[in-house]
Amino acid sequence: MTTQQSTDQQNKPVTLVGLGPMGMALAETLLKKGHSLTVWNRSPEKADGLVAKGARRAATVADAVAASPVTIVCLTDYETMYKVLEPAAEALRGRALVNLNSGTPTEAHAAVKWFEERGAGYLDGAIMVPPFLVGEPGAVFLYSGSQSVYDQHLEPLTSLGDPRFLGDDPGLAVLYNTAMLDMMYTTLNGWLHATALVGSANVSAEKFAELALGWFMPVVVDYAGLAQQAPDLDAGNYPGTLNTLEMNLNALDHITRTSEEQGIHSEHPRLMKELAERAIAEGHSGKSYLAIYELFKKATPRP
Amino acid sequence: MTTQQSTDQQNKPVTLVGLGPMGMALAETLLKKGHSLTVWNRSPEKADGLVAKGARRAATVADAVAASPVTIVCLTDYETMYKVLEPAAEALRGRALVNLNSGTPTEAHAAVKWFEERGAGYLDGAIMVPPFLVGEPGAVFLYSGSQSVYDQHLEPLTSLGDPRFLGDDPGLAVLYNTAMLDMMYTTLNGWLHATALVGSANVSAEKFAELALGWFMPVVVDYAGLAQQAPDLDAGNYPGTLNTLEMNLNALDHITRTSEEQGIHSEHPRLMKELAERAIAEGHSGKSYLAIYELFKKATPRP
Ligand SMILES: NC(=O)c1ccc[n+]([C@@H]2O[C@H](COP(=O)([O-])OP(=O)(O)OC[C@H]3O[C@@H](n4cnc5c(N)ncnc54)[C@H](OP(=O)(O)O)[C@@H]3O)[C@@H](O)[C@H]2O)c1
Ligand SMILES: NC(=O)c1ccc[n+]([C@@H]2O[C@H](COP(=O)([O-])OP(=O)(O)OC[C@H]3O[C@@H](n4cnc5c(N)ncnc54)[C@H](OP(=O)(O)O)[C@@H]3O)[C@@H](O)[C@H]2O)c1
Repeated sequence: MTTQQSTDQQNKPVTLVGLGPMGMALAETLLKKGHSLTVWNRSPEKADGLVAKGARRAATVADAVAASPVTIVCLTDYETMYKVLEPAAEALRGRALVNLNSGTPTEAHAAVKWFEERGAGYLDGAIMVPPFLVGEPGAVFLYSGSQSVYDQHLEPLTSLGDPRFLGDDPGLAVLYNTAMLDMMYTTLNGWLHATALVGSANVSAEKFAELALGWFMPVVVDYAGLAQQAPDLDAGNYPGTLNTLEMNLNALDHITRTSEEQGIHSEHPRLMKELAERAIAEGHSGKSYLAIYELFKKATPRP
Repeated sequence: MTTQQSTDQQNKPVTLVGLGPMGMALAETLLKKGHSLTVWNRSPEKADGLVAKGARRAATVADAVAASPVTIVCLTDYETMYKVLEPAAEALRGRALVNLNSGTPTEAHAAVKWFEERGAGYLDGAIMVPPFLVGEPGAVFLYSGSQSVYDQHLEPLTSLGDPRFLGDDPGLAVLYNTAMLDMMYTTLNGWLHATALVGSANVSAEKFAELALGWFMPVVVDYAGLAQQAPDLDAGNYPGTLNTLEMNLNALDHITRTSEEQGIHSEHPRLMKELAERAIAEGHSGKSYLAIYELFKKATPRP
């Protein structure tokens, strides 16, 4: 399998700039999949192991960019990328750049302009897995911006994981990434807070996890069922047939009061309760809980 | 199957007090499973359909309680239960009562005392499913308090769903219920907020759900993996080997900033960010995100 892939990919030179924990995982994966790899990193010694495995270490970032039709960048942030790539402006002209650092949609939009001014094609990306899963099946990488950069360099991108092109808007990859991390942290907080709630009655986290993670979350919080309600969110249609905001407010009041009575953190349930109250006050009385979406779509002034 | 069950259960008389949407589902299920059922409700006409199917309608709540060794109560709340059952104090003596309304652990503890004073055995319970799933396989009902009431009346309880006895502390059933609803609302909010985030770039909820609910949540937010970390929560052990609070704070700052830049609700991500900052300030620097559990275990003063 490796030999097969090596043969397939070995005429696909690719450059990688940035050898932090994530860049290193990308480099190892590109080598393993048989790409002809050129690397550059501020601290050059980080490339020693890669060079031993056949990578070429470029002396300057301009040399690195010039070595391949496409350069993948994985540095701390957009500012670092500009600082590192500025000396390679000449080499960038007519070449393609794929950037995998985290950032905001505004930063991704600005990057398109920066590379346009330097005559380079630009694809923005976001990595949805930790370094040790890079190159594994199901390692999702999100991309957005230039469809032609994506199409022309799909081979190295496919070597890294499961690439998904989200659209022409270059901000989409980082925005999706941010939104999914938002879901992840929120869900983690929900578990930790619920565990603290039962912990107040001396129930261990281990005991609670049997029911809460072993049964409730996988079975009752039904993602496929939620997905079926997504069109209602898009239509602003929140029929209160199975539940109403008033019923949910009652439950959220209950969660808040119980948190207070049990002497644990109550800011988070109180915020959820206040959101339900606000939604009712803003005219969503009698609608389903999903009407909270209307509040989330609007900016809230800093208190 | 129904005939078989009817035969098994028909000598098990049971009384049900309360015929709201949930009480009605309990009654229908008890009848279907062949119990000899006596019912009472403030609005007696709600029992008409049940009487047509073989239930007995008691004229007074005292008659209802006297008709069976065990009475299941499903009213709005604890206060309503006291008001309804007070006239049945005589009949309660020596009988068992199972209460299925929602409430707080403090209320459940008070109920034990109330029934003790009236010489009745008391089991507190919480229903984890909506009415239409009552009686279906996997419909979890939580119980806590008197193990002997639970053991002696397990048959009607098993007719209603999948009963789980959580322990002698009578507050556990409502506390587990509250904690799991806390997780559910938190997770729902996470999805709605993330959807609003991508919605700010005109991504539809339906499109986002493909990746966010079709891949990310079921695959990346790994409940079995979290459950394996529960013993670390119990031990207060949060090794920062794979992630540190500082790394997570960076991501949470990012989610907050992006929410602000995109002009959507930012209170919720800001609270998550402030929690991470507080955990670092309180000495958990360098530990994993799970150290947030330490904050959640403590009461937070109302701002
Ligand atoms: N690690 C993950 O789990 C993960 C997951 C998804 C996405 N990401 C994203 O991937 C990107 C890279 O992350 P990472 O984990 O590899 O570590 P990182 O600490 O974010 O980035 C380290 C890289 O940036 C370089 N760098 C930093 N400041 C520099 C400067 N002023 N001038 C030149 N180079 C500089 C480092 O060079 P030196 O080696 O010389 O210090 C190194 O190559 C980040 O945007 C991160 O958000 C990471
Ligand atoms: N529905 C659900 O999805 C669900 C799920 C889990 C748990 N629960 C819990 O189950 C319990 C019952 O819920 P529910 O949905 O059936 O509806 P509910 O509106 O909470 O309760 C209705 C029942 O309470 C009675 N009632 C209310 N006030 C009364 C009073 N002052 N005097 C006498 N009776 C009074 C009603 O009698 P009338 O018929 O005469 O009005 C009816 O029998 C609640 O604690 C709820 O939290 C419900």
